[in-house]
Amino acid sequence: MRYKMTFSYDGTLFHGYQSQKGKRTVEETIERELSKMNHNRDTKIVASGRTDAHVHALGQVAHFDFEEMDSVVLKRKLNKMLPDDIYIRNIEPVSDSFHARYNAKIKTYLYKINCGEYNPLEVNYIYQYNQGLNIEKMEEASTYLLGEHDFTSFVSASGQKEDMVRTIYQIDFIQKENIMMIIFIGNGFLQYMVRNMVGFLIEVGAGKIEPSQTKEVLEARDRTKASKTASPNGLYLSHVKYDE
Amino acid sequence: MRYKMTFSYDGTLFHGYQSQKGKRTVEETIERELSKMNHNRDTKIVASGRTDAHVHALGQVAHFDFEEMDSVVLKRKLNKMLPDDIYIRNIEPVSDSFHARYNAKIKTYLYKINCGEYNPLEVNYIYQYNQGLNIEKMEEASTYLLGEHDFTSFVSASGQKEDMVRTIYQIDFIQKENIMMIIFIGNGFLQYMVRNMVGFLIEVGAGKIEPSQTKEVLEARDRTKASKTASPNGLYLSHVKYDE
Repeated sequence: MRYKMTFSYDGTLFHGYQSQKGKRTVEETIERELSKMNHNRDTKIVASGRTDAHVHALGQVAHFDFEEMDSVVLKRKLNKMLPDDIYIRNIEPVSDSFHARYNAKIKTYLYKINCGEYNPLEVNYIYQYNQGLNIEKMEEASTYLLGEHDFTSFVSASGQKEDMVRTIYQIDFIQKENIMMIIFIGNGFLQYMVRNMVGFLIEVGAGKIEPSQTKEVLEARDRTKASKTASPNGLYLSHVKYDE
Repeated sequence: MRYKMTFSYDGTLFHGYQSQKGKRTVEETIERELSKMNHNRDTKIVASGRTDAHVHALGQVAHFDFEEMDSVVLKRKLNKMLPDDIYIRNIEPVSDSFHARYNAKIKTYLYKINCGEYNPLEVNYIYQYNQGLNIEKMEEASTYLLGEHDFTSFVSASGQKEDMVRTIYQIDFIQKENIMMIIFIGNGFLQYMVRNMVGFLIEVGAGKIEPSQTKEVLEARDRTKASKTASPNGLYLSHVKYDE
């Protein structure tokens, strides 16, 4: 029986989503408990994608195969076994053809920036930039990133040979008091892509780069043209959408 | 030269405010760095009061004696040396007669409760009650706590011989979506007093105790009459007010 699972986690104490030998990861933590519940049969979960170390998730999605069981009971039992920093929000039976990675259509990421005074209570959850940013300039720059592009300039420098073309549908800015939230909606995001776009947008907001230069940087298809990767602590995988 | 210092901290990784041998505490962490800056002279800070393990502070206040120095420079230098989870918000010179504990006139504490779905990202900052609460009943019960009372029923069970009389000026309830915030303003709070009042108010909100019973419990002056101590994670020392 195949199940679709939606879950949230606090990335602070995880070495990222993907299993790595000897490190605490989200994938390994969930698989260990699911396998115990599945009569110690090695049970794998397949997520919509990885998240990096210290990145959070509000609505990560994964699928897994498990014996037939009431999904509400399964959710409750699994939550009881999981540590405090992972929570299963929903489990539902799906068809055997459902695949959490291949069928993912739209992903939403949030990035939070504190533009006001340093707050020691937010360190793991909101990037502490602690200076003002020009939101209008950032909004202007972001319009160049919308649509289908080769995002090589904004991708992890560790040159993978992957297809770097992705489509961004929407980038929204919300400012509440000193906290700026940037919302990215697209058909998929490459490694470090959101954090590299945020690093770039922050330089635009700080007046170091003109919004119009965004086009140039994007067209250069050269990682060294863009800016620093923004800290993982402010990043949240918010939502993954599938065809119904 | 005497200085008044206002500071915030994330209580998650501290064994409370007060120094304890071999444990990481707020007091010891600040005193260690201040002493280094003070030519290794043992430099003590005196706070408005202690906070328990895992309790946070937004506006704790302390005084200390230090060589004459520009207070903005002192703040910047100290913040550079302190770990991420403590932040000095302000330092200002005060008269030698200023005492952060004896001169404190009004203290404000906040307590945050999540009445909605469990959120693994809030575990250290908002008490995860994860059930609905009747805010009207809680507000009604809270009115009995206002004014000058002997709060023995709401104090740490480890029977100190202290004076248990305190005055509460105001208790406010704010509900934003699923998060309930209770604000307590008074001339001082005894150990566990806020958390014990919150534990009691939660039982009222859950329908286990009638609001009118509050008077009885208060007048009993017996700790065993009240309820469980609420978790420290939701508690914040927000503000300490002094006569100007």
